[in-house]
Amino acid sequence: MPRQIDWLSILVQCKTNVQRRISPLLATLSKPQPNLGIGAGGDPMRQVDLAAEKAIVETLRKHDLQFTLVSEESGLKKYGKNPQENYITTDPIDGTTNLTRGIPFYATSIAVSTKPTLETVHAALVADLFHDVTYTAQNGKGAHRNGRKVTPSGNTLLEEAVIGIDINSYKVQKITSQLTRLIQRTKHIRHFGANALELCYVADGTSDAFIDIRGKLRTTDMAAAWLIIREAGARMTSPTGEPLKVKLDPKQKVEFVASANQEMHETILNLLRHEKDEE
Amino acid sequence: MPRQIDWLSILVQCKTNVQRRISPLLATLSKPQPNLGIGAGGDPMRQVDLAAEKAIVETLRKHDLQFTLVSEESGLKKYGKNPQENYITTDPIDGTTNLTRGIPFYATSIAVSTKPTLETVHAALVADLFHDVTYTAQNGKGAHRNGRKVTPSGNTLLEEAVIGIDINSYKVQKITSQLTRLIQRTKHIRHFGANALELCYVADGTSDAFIDIRGKLRTTDMAAAWLIIREAGARMTSPTGEPLKVKLDPKQKVEFVASANQEMHETILNLLRHEKDEE
Repeated sequence: MPRQIDWLSILVQCKTNVQRRISPLLATLSKPQPNLGIGAGGDPMRQVDLAAEKAIVETLRKHDLQFTLVSEESGLKKYGKNPQENYITTDPIDGTTNLTRGIPFYATSIAVSTKPTLETVHAALVADLFHDVTYTAQNGKGAHRNGRKVTPSGNTLLEEAVIGIDINSYKVQKITSQLTRLIQRTKHIRHFGANALELCYVADGTSDAFIDIRGKLRTTDMAAAWLIIREAGARMTSPTGEPLKVKLDPKQKVEFVASANQEMHETILNLLRHEKDEE
Repeated sequence: MPRQIDWLSILVQCKTNVQRRISPLLATLSKPQPNLGIGAGGDPMRQVDLAAEKAIVETLRKHDLQFTLVSEESGLKKYGKNPQENYITTDPIDGTTNLTRGIPFYATSIAVSTKPTLETVHAALVADLFHDVTYTAQNGKGAHRNGRKVTPSGNTLLEEAVIGIDINSYKVQKITSQLTRLIQRTKHIRHFGANALELCYVADGTSDAFIDIRGKLRTTDMAAAWLIIREAGARMTSPTGEPLKVKLDPKQKVEFVASANQEMHETILNLLRHEKDEE
């Protein structure tokens, strides 16, 4: 029988270690960064991402855990004799561009699963590193924000809804075409640039929905938030309403709609379908 | 000869008073607000907006100022015997929806002018009330962020740019159609939901551009940021490259492109023009 592991405690330790590891780098990135050579030369973005990943691995190893790391940064990596015991799917820093530009909106995202599949994720953490707000969830035990149970919004009116939409895509024309009726009925479209955290906003009632139908978001970015959404009692499916059954792999892409409640979810999916039918 | 007025000092006092006046309301709005009846019943949004406006007027009156208030909240109001001495154009809370939902991104915006026109604005303040970051500008004296001079980004590459775009409009299809080529070349589109503050992000190099071509933003929302942008040395014109010559009036709408530098500005305007030509 496998030993009992207190995953939530370990994930919180990972987060604390990430903060500790990136803080010297943040200090050198005095904000704002008007002339930061993003992607060039020393590449401060990649430095921050790698430091955060290292912090996560270091913490897990300290607990003698054996695992396969599924990371946005360095792909698949195996640790220990039985790396298939646990799968750790992470985007060490979600919103690195925000971080390097001084926009106070970036997170770390870590999901634990028994197989490299979304539906086996059983423990998760997404933490807003700037405001030190930590979302956690465990299978069957609800979702929490800084230790307090969260529930999604009861709002069912699109007209009053705050809705996150990621339109960063070459296919922007197709995406916005599909979203036209939805956007026409809403007044508060947002995109903060850290999708894992924006999904947690749906879980805790800060927003009413988050939509990413570009087909380019990696599963590393949403695996943890998926459990937090589900445990909070919000809804998250494919744009056609199917359950999200996807592989956890650095190259696996996914598209989805997440909504605060079933009524809001149906309203959004119906508006998306409607557009599709007219194509 | 009119008495010498230290406008920046007075505007900062207005901001401090706004923070003081809204803090009891924020306390009752414990965040997040999953079931907040936005717009309904007691309407906490309007309460916060009016409390902020009252704080601004109160501070100005304390200094025996005579002025015409041009406010998003209560339209035109005259104070003192010679209300045409000064025009105070304000959105007391820019991003009220964010504030009431617990999204840490909202601001107060105050512009001072000698006439009810944008081009006579000579002192301005936009303050991020959550993070207590204050942008100020005075005609010919540069723009400052918490007292330190700001300069915009030197980035000229769209591919690396962080660009804010407001697409909240019934005309979303037309807007995104006009923006297609631009969005296709960028990777970091954002919208935080407080346009005055997002314009200040262009002034201080946090972002590279902010675009609002919906034709529905009120001049009350951008009058202060306009001066901050100009004094920082960034660019802000109509979508066709004309100087912004608009009335300061609660009903006056405006559309614009703001960019960190002339090269970025020309790149963006050219992409917009290109789309227009093809219509």
